[in-house]
Amino acid sequence: MSGWLKIVGLGPGADAMITPEVTAALSDATDVVGYVPYVNRVAPRDGLTRHGSDNREEIRRAEQALQLALEGHRVVVVSSGDPGVFAMASAVFEALEAGDAVWRALDIQVMPGISAMLAASARAGAPLGHDFCCINLSDNLKPWALIEKRLRLAAEADFAMAFYNPRSKSRPVGFERTLEVLREACEPERLIIFARAVSTPDESIRVTALKDATPEMADMRTLVIVGSRQTRLIERDGEPLVYTPRSAL
Amino acid sequence: MSGWLKIVGLGPGADAMITPEVTAALSDATDVVGYVPYVNRVAPRDGLTRHGSDNREEIRRAEQALQLALEGHRVVVVSSGDPGVFAMASAVFEALEAGDAVWRALDIQVMPGISAMLAASARAGAPLGHDFCCINLSDNLKPWALIEKRLRLAAEADFAMAFYNPRSKSRPVGFERTLEVLREACEPERLIIFARAVSTPDESIRVTALKDATPEMADMRTLVIVGSRQTRLIERDGEPLVYTPRSAL
Repeated sequence: MSGWLKIVGLGPGADAMITPEVTAALSDATDVVGYVPYVNRVAPRDGLTRHGSDNREEIRRAEQALQLALEGHRVVVVSSGDPGVFAMASAVFEALEAGDAVWRALDIQVMPGISAMLAASARAGAPLGHDFCCINLSDNLKPWALIEKRLRLAAEADFAMAFYNPRSKSRPVGFERTLEVLREACEPERLIIFARAVSTPDESIRVTALKDATPEMADMRTLVIVGSRQTRLIERDGEPLVYTPRSAL
Repeated sequence: MSGWLKIVGLGPGADAMITPEVTAALSDATDVVGYVPYVNRVAPRDGLTRHGSDNREEIRRAEQALQLALEGHRVVVVSSGDPGVFAMASAVFEALEAGDAVWRALDIQVMPGISAMLAASARAGAPLGHDFCCINLSDNLKPWALIEKRLRLAAEADFAMAFYNPRSKSRPVGFERTLEVLREACEPERLIIFARAVSTPDESIRVTALKDATPEMADMRTLVIVGSRQTRLIERDGEPLVYTPRSAL
């Protein structure tokens, strides 16, 4: 069996944030599989077939990738950011566990990428420099009550928080409710960062206090970071820096 | 002022996981500043001065880097993994906030890296594929009671957990206590991953159940990941795969 499957992260957008091992995997591949906008980040070339599919097609896409690898193809499944953070790696393993037993003998490797959370944190300063948590705010695959419970416990633990998928057209109210829960649990001056499309031409970083945050500040391309009680802002010419000190009381 | 300061992440160990933007920054630098073993990962060359310093020297090291940049040097501060996760970015900003006001006018940039957490997760499968938290188990800069509180709240939230700095010669008992707290809060079969020195020649990955975990399985080069209640193990020839499904009840 000469086929293989590599599940890789393309980072947040800029080619300069794609690791050399991922670039090498893409060079060796016969097939690239993923959500259309991510597959389109891989340049076409002779000998490479690009299989783009729609959002919410993750399991079918994972099965397709596993089957292609079984047939001897060298398959790269692409995600934005890191493949292991709310992305394709878990979907592939769900399909693997539920699917044909022969898939388990495949040569499968996950290659990490610069996650949206780490890229956003770097642009803002170092808001994740102390203990933190990372929550997917989409309730497509879990009940909203569980998200609220996690928000309240994270605030009680005084974690900084990174939020993926804060808001979309199909989920217009969840992020408004998130802000309400945070306002009940955190002080009004708590720092919140809206990092949109980091490392792309559309990049924007906005820092505000929780009391001034509005749902419209986030969309599906926004990674939101809420500081802990310790998180601080350094004023300077140009953009301020936001960081969480290493120590806590 | 022609100097600049870039705070970069070298990733977990392998050159193939260093991003091109970090490689370019190192090529342009006149000075590299950091903890000795990380500075030693940057090859010597004409025109580059390497300033290695001891562990726990972070603030003095940060001040040195800021001062060099002020004097016109092109300075790269190196961390292992990502510079924003329990690493040098927060230390630089602590020094910046407390220090000479002229430092605030410096050209400062943070460049993300593949964090130990993401590299460990990729090697094991996708244990961080659902909501998770990240806790530094060192009590050098925070009280142990705060760590215990966070462990209990993280278990109640059913986060997967990534632990940095689980154990060292100067902190021999903390990780033993961590395992005790987790055994009180989690079921005995909870999956736990010990990922040591990922992407280096010393790499090892060990997966076990919480009931079978012992303190000796971790050292300062180990990143520990504790699954959530949902985390699953896929048996196969060779290493098993550990992943957390995207959905939760």
